[in-house]
Amino acid sequence: MWSELLPIGRATDGGYHRFTFTPSELECRAWFLDQARRRGLTLEQDTNGNLFAWWLPESGERGDAVLTGSHLDSVPGGGAYDGPLGVISAFAAIDRLRAAGVRPQRPIGVSAFAEEEGARFGVACLGSRLLSGAITPERARGLSDGDGRSFAEVAAENGLDPDALGPDADLLGRIGCYVELHVEQGRALREPVGVASSIVPHGRWRLDFAGEGNHAGTTLITDRRDPMLPFAFAVIAARQAAERNGTVATVGKVAVTPNGVNAIPSAVTAWLDSRGPFEGDVRRTVAEIMEAARVAAEAHGVTVEMAEESYTEIVDFNRDLRERVVKSLGGVPVLPTGAGHDAGILASRVPTAMLFVRNPTGISHDPAEFAEEEDCLHGVEALATVLKDLARG
Amino acid sequence: MWSELLPIGRATDGGYHRFTFTPSELECRAWFLDQARRRGLTLEQDTNGNLFAWWLPESGERGDAVLTGSHLDSVPGGGAYDGPLGVISAFAAIDRLRAAGVRPQRPIGVSAFAEEEGARFGVACLGSRLLSGAITPERARGLSDGDGRSFAEVAAENGLDPDALGPDADLLGRIGCYVELHVEQGRALREPVGVASSIVPHGRWRLDFAGEGNHAGTTLITDRRDPMLPFAFAVIAARQAAERNGTVATVGKVAVTPNGVNAIPSAVTAWLDSRGPFEGDVRRTVAEIMEAARVAAEAHGVTVEMAEESYTEIVDFNRDLRERVVKSLGGVPVLPTGAGHDAGILASRVPTAMLFVRNPTGISHDPAEFAEEEDCLHGVEALATVLKDLARG
Repeated sequence: MWSELLPIGRATDGGYHRFTFTPSELECRAWFLDQARRRGLTLEQDTNGNLFAWWLPESGERGDAVLTGSHLDSVPGGGAYDGPLGVISAFAAIDRLRAAGVRPQRPIGVSAFAEEEGARFGVACLGSRLLSGAITPERARGLSDGDGRSFAEVAAENGLDPDALGPDADLLGRIGCYVELHVEQGRALREPVGVASSIVPHGRWRLDFAGEGNHAGTTLITDRRDPMLPFAFAVIAARQAAERNGTVATVGKVAVTPNGVNAIPSAVTAWLDSRGPFEGDVRRTVAEIMEAARVAAEAHGVTVEMAEESYTEIVDFNRDLRERVVKSLGGVPVLPTGAGHDAGILASRVPTAMLFVRNPTGISHDPAEFAEEEDCLHGVEALATVLKDLARG
Repeated sequence: MWSELLPIGRATDGGYHRFTFTPSELECRAWFLDQARRRGLTLEQDTNGNLFAWWLPESGERGDAVLTGSHLDSVPGGGAYDGPLGVISAFAAIDRLRAAGVRPQRPIGVSAFAEEEGARFGVACLGSRLLSGAITPERARGLSDGDGRSFAEVAAENGLDPDALGPDADLLGRIGCYVELHVEQGRALREPVGVASSIVPHGRWRLDFAGEGNHAGTTLITDRRDPMLPFAFAVIAARQAAERNGTVATVGKVAVTPNGVNAIPSAVTAWLDSRGPFEGDVRRTVAEIMEAARVAAEAHGVTVEMAEESYTEIVDFNRDLRERVVKSLGGVPVLPTGAGHDAGILASRVPTAMLFVRNPTGISHDPAEFAEEEDCLHGVEALATVLKDLARG
């Protein structure tokens, strides 16, 4: 199962490029449908492009389902595990339960949520946000990708009705709980499997620096309004503010216009990601970075505009569900995470839990992302145990 | 004539995108061939992709030619004048001479040199460098564009023989002198037309910062090896070093891998352009930037490698030719320029001069690049006067 998915969208350096509704991601969707069909699961695609494969109980009951899964899209140059591990483990756990003769009393579903990474349209967890009402359909329709194409346009091309985007009360009402398995993305988990306590507050901000494009050779320094300079100051300010406030802050993406060797840029757009255990510290980090950007921009005759692209408050996963999961696993480490997940979005609507599989190097969002096969099998075993316990009713 | 060329490769913001051997640049080449044919000029494309249109004297003599022209390619988002003004003015000057009944004793040629901006393959003045032997054919063949396609491959696709790239002694031997008309790219020229004294030393360097790609949320600051940080320090160091040394230094182009919002980059590549009146100052500027980049990279656990992509020493244009040009124009301002030109490359092989047309804002390499129509007509008039004087023998 893993070997069929592995080559899709993999670049020569081993990094994955699976952006929502691009050929490689569509191939991952086809893989999902194929896996579901092979198992006789009931397929469902919601109006937001999220995929579901249901193992219905003999009663035919469709409500109070135990949903598990993750996502199939990737960051640019991402690793093999972030997302797909949770989907594959879900199918594998179902295989184990069936092999063991388990007959669930509740539906068990496998999900693959759309645009979890936000790598194409800029808003992480777009599919689960739409489903749960955490983003308005209006805003989602207007999001655009790097080529300037809107989500509405791309969604329509891929068989979705842009006017039907948004919360799905019927589907949400049928989900009794959601358990997402995911590779850990730091080095905090020292055992094969752990359970999430919370997702720390996190957000994304965009900084648009606008100066004056000009010739790199003939423009005197005093005549320059070069947006690359305040951008550079903002990058350094981000690190310093994060250190001061006990948070993390990252400028991982930048777009330079026109991006020519011998041209002073006319504009630089930078994306800032910041997270931390406490909302106040994250807000302070971002405010300090913005202030540094403003001061540097002014000093260089450049304008800067800032926009919050997304912000997610702390997510404390449902305590009862977490305790039940930990108990069924016979006691495993419980830890917070700095990474956003669809589970964090759905947690506002349904009881939600997360299982983590150990990441020995802590590397993620990189081709070097890795988990030991043995740990992955532990993850499947743990997920099967949890599903069996929950689906028993 | 201008109106036919104007729309080619123009983006919605008015910026031009005419990269060598892309559809828009090929359309410009077709325009050139058409203009030459309409005037009954003798067409010649050399083995390096440079175009020539010859007005041969009645004697049929092909040697000791007076060549004029410029280039048709652009930087990304460039202006309408940088390059095309010199080619259009050349055709227009020939029209004036013919209308005035001038019968040249020497051939008058119009040239359009390939890849002057280096926007596609990274080396500025690639066509004139190849023709004059300022770059080896081996190195030129191996240059690659942003899609990883080699110049050899792209040249072959466009009808050139990659093995025939390189100096053309016969063609060079036929060029008696070269006079390039170009829009000024700073604000130093206060009259409609001026003449160049020199091109100041200038070069391009590439800085490759390599760190460790990772998740922006889950990686502790102490575990990070983020190449964006030393890159930012290098941008700031570039400005400071230029101010200290009386030069200019610009980081106008950057490539981030993977360039994802929620991923610490694994690598950042930056291109540095530096120029100044004195070679020692330029060298010192670059050395100081490199040192700052090294120190910052080490502090962040990042490696940095630096490569000189091109370097051009000061070009003092031929004194006799310059004095003759100034004299024939009845006295015009003489000024140095910080911009590289094909004229600067050819100057090492043939007597070369440059005419500048006033740029009221000094803006260049930007959609806002501009010259007054009246000044452009002054430029055509001046070029016609110079050609007439030189071609008389």
